[in-house]
Amino acid sequence: MASTRDRIIDTSAELFRRQGFTGTGVKQIVTEADAPFGSLYHFFPGGKEELGATVVRWSGDLYRVLVESVWDERTDVVRGARHVFTVAAAHLRDSDYADACPIATVALEVSSTSEPMRVACAEVFESWIVAATDRLVGAGVARRRARPLAIALLSLLEGAFIFCRAARDTEALDAAGAAATALVRDAVATARRRG
Amino acid sequence: MASTRDRIIDTSAELFRRQGFTGTGVKQIVTEADAPFGSLYHFFPGGKEELGATVVRWSGDLYRVLVESVWDERTDVVRGARHVFTVAAAHLRDSDYADACPIATVALEVSSTSEPMRVACAEVFESWIVAATDRLVGAGVARRRARPLAIALLSLLEGAFIFCRAARDTEALDAAGAAATALVRDAVATARRRG
Repeated sequence: MASTRDRIIDTSAELFRRQGFTGTGVKQIVTEADAPFGSLYHFFPGGKEELGATVVRWSGDLYRVLVESVWDERTDVVRGARHVFTVAAAHLRDSDYADACPIATVALEVSSTSEPMRVACAEVFESWIVAATDRLVGAGVARRRARPLAIALLSLLEGAFIFCRAARDTEALDAAGAAATALVRDAVATARRRG
Repeated sequence: MASTRDRIIDTSAELFRRQGFTGTGVKQIVTEADAPFGSLYHFFPGGKEELGATVVRWSGDLYRVLVESVWDERTDVVRGARHVFTVAAAHLRDSDYADACPIATVALEVSSTSEPMRVACAEVFESWIVAATDRLVGAGVARRRARPLAIALLSLLEGAFIFCRAARDTEALDAAGAAATALVRDAVATARRRG
C-alpha cells in the first residue's frame, strides 16, 4: 500500500483536477486519503498551499511523461501529435468528463491569489513547453519555430479541454487535434523544404 | 449609478474571473457591490448557483460582443483574427494578468459539480463557436470546415490565457495568435482555390 504522504498527494491531485483547489477542503483530502488529520500538516507544514504546490509539480511531471510516451521519437511526429488528442478525448470520455488537465483548473484559480502555487504552475507549463519543443526539434523543426508551435499545440489541448468538459462531448478535442495536425505537418514540410 | 442587481452581477463577474466561483463568497460579493446582504437572495432566490449561471451568461454575451467588435466584417478576416490575440494580450498585461476569459475558470471548477452552471458555460461557449463560425463562413470558408476551425481558434485563445496568467507574460498569446493566423490564412486560401 502507498505511504500516507503518497496517498495524500494522489488523492489531492484527483480532487483538485475535478473540483479545483479552492473547492477542496483539507478535511475531504485526509478522509478520502484514509489519513489521520494531523498527517497533512506533518508532511506539509505550510498546509494546503504547500501541498498544492507539491501536487502541481507531481501531477505535472506525471502528465509530461504520459504525453511523451504517446508522442515519442519512434512515432511519426504528425501522427503522434494527433494521437495525443485522441487519447485525451478517450480518457476524458471514460472519466465521465472529469479527468482533463491536472493543472489548468488550479492554475486559473490561483494565478492571481497564491504566488507559490502560481510559480509551481508556471514551472510545470514551462517544462511541458520545453519537452514539446525538443520533440519538434528532434523532427527537424528549427528551434525558433518549434517553441511557439509547441505553445500553440499545448494551448489547443488546454483550451479544448475547457470546451469538452463544459459540453460533455469530445468535439473540441477532435477539432483542436485536427488543427494541431495541420500546424505540425506544415512545420515539418517547411523544415524539409529548407533542408 | 447602476441598479443593485447590476452591481451584484458586475462585481461577481470580476471576482469569479480573478479568483474563481468556489473561492468567492456571497459576503465578499455583497460587500464589494455595496449591496445589502439580503438583496442577493432577493434577486437570485437560488442563491450563489443561480447568480453564477446568470453571471456566466451575462459575461459570455459581453465577451462575444467584444470579440465581434474586434473581428468584424469590415476587417480582413486573417488580420482580424490576429488582432483578437493582440488585444487580449494587451488587456491581460494592463490588468496585471488577472482579466483573461470571464468563463473558463468557472467552467473548469463547476463542470463536474454544478449541472446548472455547467449548462450555462456550455451554452455560452456554443454561442461563441457559432459566432466565430459565421464570421469564417462570411469570409468564404465552407461551413463544415468553419466550425472545427472556429473551435480551434477559441481553444488557442483559452489555452494561451492559462499559460499567460501562470507565467505572467504574453508569450503564449503571441504564439497562439500566430498559429491562429496561419490556420485562418490557410482556410481562406483553400476556400479561394475551390472558388
